[in-house]
Amino acid sequence: MPAPMIKLYQFHPSGNCYKVRLLLHQLSIPFETQEVDLTAGEARTAEFKAKNPIAKTPTVELEPGVFLAESNAILWYFAEGTPFIPSDKLERARMLQWMFFEQYSHEPYVAVARAWLTFFGIPPGKERELEERIQKGYVALDVMEGELTKRPFFAGEHYSLADIALYAYTHVAEEGRFDLGRYPAIRAWFERVRAQPRHLRITDSTILKSG
Amino acid sequence: MPAPMIKLYQFHPSGNCYKVRLLLHQLSIPFETQEVDLTAGEARTAEFKAKNPIAKTPTVELEPGVFLAESNAILWYFAEGTPFIPSDKLERARMLQWMFFEQYSHEPYVAVARAWLTFFGIPPGKERELEERIQKGYVALDVMEGELTKRPFFAGEHYSLADIALYAYTHVAEEGRFDLGRYPAIRAWFERVRAQPRHLRITDSTILKSG
Repeated sequence: MPAPMIKLYQFHPSGNCYKVRLLLHQLSIPFETQEVDLTAGEARTAEFKAKNPIAKTPTVELEPGVFLAESNAILWYFAEGTPFIPSDKLERARMLQWMFFEQYSHEPYVAVARAWLTFFGIPPGKERELEERIQKGYVALDVMEGELTKRPFFAGEHYSLADIALYAYTHVAEEGRFDLGRYPAIRAWFERVRAQPRHLRITDSTILKSG
Repeated sequence: MPAPMIKLYQFHPSGNCYKVRLLLHQLSIPFETQEVDLTAGEARTAEFKAKNPIAKTPTVELEPGVFLAESNAILWYFAEGTPFIPSDKLERARMLQWMFFEQYSHEPYVAVARAWLTFFGIPPGKERELEERIQKGYVALDVMEGELTKRPFFAGEHYSLADIALYAYTHVAEEGRFDLGRYPAIRAWFERVRAQPRHLRITDSTILKSG
């Protein structure tokens, strides 16, 4: 009997959801998608919270009724035992370091600015908060630029989950009004990420049949 | 030759730093601490950023000149190969799910409210933001309460890094004005966490000599 088809509950333009599509495509793992319209609050319904009480996308259904949430935990689940996770203990921990950095010090600023400016609109009274988020987003980009002058990828010499996690929102940061012109090391890293086998763009609508 | 002594750069009252002390103590791994006074901005000096460009505590120095940052990545590093990380693949991913939840949906609200109210003061003009953070902190506590009615620990049947990560700021949430009286499942879980061998309190000043 074939394994059940993995289902990805996603909001397609979300970088967090794109991370999962990119990895699954690179691993040649088949999956289907179901759109959750975050602009219509569809992740906050009782029906969706029964799948993921954290009420966020991406959420994957591994088999009927078995769900896993949090983009970077989903990446870990599928990448275990593959070259996307370094075999060296310290590099593996450094990979996780940059994945936690991404969720704590990057996504709330770089991704949220893009989300407000591109998909949801600036919430009423949040204009000053947007400016603060853009400022903190630049701090995160500065940290990335500094690291990428020292090594080609975030965990070390090789592409890993940390690169997928950080690429997802960084490469579309201009949609959040970030000027990437001042970051040559980040732009050179974009090219290294895009040169990986089976790269997928955030706008690519689907996957599996491309083989 | 003995292994070099691990050095933890920490701000003692920080829950993120407490996580590392608690795990190292439970693993009987000796370490020394060096205080970084966050109320004096000591994590943002050039000297500290040379150790950790993310400019945050905890940072560990594994051997002279080799640093690792991000509390939950540090936990992972030391816990690999121990019962603090589940041996089951799905439970391991669920543990990471709750650790990413902690950093994205819990710490910025529960910990930051406590930090402002207890250590740093409310930044000028941030009174409304504090109320929003408290509201979102309650959302995170509601999610935790729901999970803990289904299973004894976050990854499943056993205490894991996810419990250390979430216990750190939840058990002192009242210092951020959160009322834990409405969360019986969380309070029962506190007791299960405290009943683990070699538990350490956040206020315990040191460790190693306690054996």
